[in-house]
Amino acid sequence: MDNKGRKWMVKVERGKKFSIHLGDIKYDDIIGQKYGSSITTHLGKKLYIIRPTIYDHILKLKRKTQIVYPKDIGYIILKLGIRPGSKILEVGTGSGAVTIAIALILGGKGKIDTYEKREDIAKIAEHNINKLCGDEDKKIINIHIKDFTEANIPKENYDIAIIDIDAPWTALPKVYDALKPGGKIAVIIPTYNQVDKIMDELEGRFINIEAVEIFLRELQVKKGAIRPEFRMIGYTTVVLTGSKYS
Amino acid sequence: MDNKGRKWMVKVERGKKFSIHLGDIKYDDIIGQKYGSSITTHLGKKLYIIRPTIYDHILKLKRKTQIVYPKDIGYIILKLGIRPGSKILEVGTGSGAVTIAIALILGGKGKIDTYEKREDIAKIAEHNINKLCGDEDKKIINIHIKDFTEANIPKENYDIAIIDIDAPWTALPKVYDALKPGGKIAVIIPTYNQVDKIMDELEGRFINIEAVEIFLRELQVKKGAIRPEFRMIGYTTVVLTGSKYS
Amino acid sequence: MDNKGRKWMVKVERGKKFSIHLGDIKYDDIIGQKYGSSITTHLGKKLYIIRPTIYDHILKLKRKTQIVYPKDIGYIILKLGIRPGSKILEVGTGSGAVTIAIALILGGKGKIDTYEKREDIAKIAEHNINKLCGDEDKKIINIHIKDFTEANIPKENYDIAIIDIDAPWTALPKVYDALKPGGKIAVIIPTYNQVDKIMDELEGRFINIEAVEIFLRELQVKKGAIRPEFRMIGYTTVVLTGSKYS
Amino acid sequence: MDNKGRKWMVKVERGKKFSIHLGDIKYDDIIGQKYGSSITTHLGKKLYIIRPTIYDHILKLKRKTQIVYPKDIGYIILKLGIRPGSKILEVGTGSGAVTIAIALILGGKGKIDTYEKREDIAKIAEHNINKLCGDEDKKIINIHIKDFTEANIPKENYDIAIIDIDAPWTALPKVYDALKPGGKIAVIIPTYNQVDKIMDELEGRFINIEAVEIFLRELQVKKGAIRPEFRMIGYTTVVLTGSKYS
Repeated sequence: MDNKGRKWMVKVERGKKFSIHLGDIKYDDIIGQKYGSSITTHLGKKLYIIRPTIYDHILKLKRKTQIVYPKDIGYIILKLGIRPGSKILEVGTGSGAVTIAIALILGGKGKIDTYEKREDIAKIAEHNINKLCGDEDKKIINIHIKDFTEANIPKENYDIAIIDIDAPWTALPKVYDALKPGGKIAVIIPTYNQVDKIMDELEGRFINIEAVEIFLRELQVKKGAIRPEFRMIGYTTVVLTGSKYS
Repeated sequence: MDNKGRKWMVKVERGKKFSIHLGDIKYDDIIGQKYGSSITTHLGKKLYIIRPTIYDHILKLKRKTQIVYPKDIGYIILKLGIRPGSKILEVGTGSGAVTIAIALILGGKGKIDTYEKREDIAKIAEHNINKLCGDEDKKIINIHIKDFTEANIPKENYDIAIIDIDAPWTALPKVYDALKPGGKIAVIIPTYNQVDKIMDELEGRFINIEAVEIFLRELQVKKGAIRPEFRMIGYTTVVLTGSKYS
Repeated sequence: MDNKGRKWMVKVERGKKFSIHLGDIKYDDIIGQKYGSSITTHLGKKLYIIRPTIYDHILKLKRKTQIVYPKDIGYIILKLGIRPGSKILEVGTGSGAVTIAIALILGGKGKIDTYEKREDIAKIAEHNINKLCGDEDKKIINIHIKDFTEANIPKENYDIAIIDIDAPWTALPKVYDALKPGGKIAVIIPTYNQVDKIMDELEGRFINIEAVEIFLRELQVKKGAIRPEFRMIGYTTVVLTGSKYS
Repeated sequence: MDNKGRKWMVKVERGKKFSIHLGDIKYDDIIGQKYGSSITTHLGKKLYIIRPTIYDHILKLKRKTQIVYPKDIGYIILKLGIRPGSKILEVGTGSGAVTIAIALILGGKGKIDTYEKREDIAKIAEHNINKLCGDEDKKIINIHIKDFTEANIPKENYDIAIIDIDAPWTALPKVYDALKPGGKIAVIIPTYNQVDKIMDELEGRFINIEAVEIFLRELQVKKGAIRPEFRMIGYTTVVLTGSKYS
């Protein structure tokens, strides 16, 4: 990170260097430094070495599809009560943002079965998972490269299901069967038309239906000039949640 | 939950009953039922049995102080990269909402040292923790009933610190020392004046300072009449985050 | 207004008095006072005499239908370019909030033809108009108690049309004919389903279609404790605007 | 406007032409066309001729300072009750956005005295006023190129004052004197620090203090894919209003 808060996410490798308009830095000079320390480029500019968190990683993930934003994933984790030991079904792996964020929370306990019908997208998810998850995390993730609606899914097996596909209603009957009694769902729904459309398929299968939209606005944190930033992401998705009705 | 989405959170006890305007239900009739099933009151009204998640619990916690809302806790978890194994320092236990939500995420691995100077409030936190955490979770929570600014805190010991007290700037020097290099902080800041005031104390100690405000708006999910709800919680807090500068 | 900002809107009448929990005030004691001055109740409590503006009046209007909020009316006025001289067609008078706000802007120049099919509602609008508009304003308002879709409307006669009825798409063909070339519309649309539904009828008739939602959040203005208010009206309506396509 | 909703604001002049990447259009071919009609470029692309409103003009004004957005001006107009006949004092002309929007509402009745201490900025305001106001509108606008705090202002002369300068508190004593009893103010305040700072100077001079922030979010109006736009202006200003206390 530079003095203006601009950030670059890099993988440090011996013998290589990092070059930006502020100058070059040899990675060998970074290795051994503490996180939080600063380093100077060959042009005399100061850069800070900051450890990225899952939040930063999600925003920089390699992807072909719209990612789910951390603000929405954070909501889902608490709303559904995801914690170590949870057995989770994910319909629509996408770039793996949700898969990875949840795997890190599970900490090697529990299970994530994730379905992605497009092989090219599943490959990206695998790439991202390999990059960001430890061995213990990877052990509990199973990527199934197949169409969920045609897959053979065990019954009453999952605590929680997260659905993020184009036509989420098509997955609901099978998701219903796959959940344990009282199991929870979260559905990522980009348009209001889809919110309306999914209501028919929820009827009789899920109760306690709630849908929310979460806005995140950044604040300019400048002494004496505290105010919101002028630019903002105005919308990401609607998140709908519910409980299985038995 | 009734047909209109109104909810009551109850502890089911043998031999007792639940009475509301919709009628009575004997708890003995609930015991043995699956989550997600429905039951009928003596007045013939249908109620649904739903398993609450940590999200619901936080909103219903016994408290004397303003709680931190789940939307904000979910953001903090991902922003700081909280996961099983994290060693966490919490300054200001309050009602224990953050403590409990994080303890459930840690899943028995890691540590939470939490400081609360008011004994009456610490007692409430303890009550809430005992109610919502399992033995494994409780094992990693240490409530210290003392003023953090006067406590003896080990150095470079924590990955993450969360500060939620009236004058958060007073805790910063000690929090700085207590964090490992590159450690992360989140500060709960209710007013804009306090955001301004804390900037002085962050200077030179923390970098990568970001502050956000998160809005959550509910949607009316009624087939053919999808629209946001008219009422909304307009504000809860600013959440400021940063990384220790070495 | 009292010291806590609570307000009462009253019509001052000779010989009568105003009674609230803070005490009584004889209207005769108010008459002759300047706006902005204070007066003391018989219990010694201070009250301020404040001249209400159209903004306050709209929020207190007698009504049977959902009002259009001033924040949305203010947007419509500038977005459509309403000003003295504008010839305006209003479909759906409702409580008259929009009618009155615009009449005051027109200042006796221009015209408002407003249609309301329900007589009981039109009577409320008339009541409100009589209370808040001067003679010059009333002169340019014509309330037509009839179903707009069945009314005989002159062609290419209006600069601007504002539609606020249950099924706004039913009015569009006639509104199209009634507008001058390049005429502008604003449509008040409470649900997202209706936004979707109206698109078909706009197609080929109107261009430059834009839809917005306006949020208004109040700030607590307390020295040293500036922050947004906790409660907020989360939603009122979508406002859709467009230009007649010839 | 093209088929994708992109707009260009142009002044049509005989003998000249308009050139964009979609092709050229001779202005002579536009002259005589109705607003709302379409025209084809020499590359065969369709463009629509749309009459801009004050809303569009404000967003495109020539300027050296931050403009006040129409959403905020619309609020001010209704909140303060601006209408034909209002006598208005403006402190800080800036680019003239507020001056022009209000002049068009006054419709030649009333008065706007506007103060701007920087001559270069006043010149831009004059340029903008000349371009957008008719003779009747211009007649009631008086630009005073001087520092308001040092100007000689008549007492109890204005119904309404609008303040939009760097240090708005410096203008308050004089604004107070200039207003009629019960007169109203609106203050444009970009940062929260300034909201806090102005409170001291309001104390004892103005009552009924309210501050709001207005968000405007655009909706994607595409049949079958209704959702908010992803990008949004997250913040413009706080608008504080009040009434003179006598």
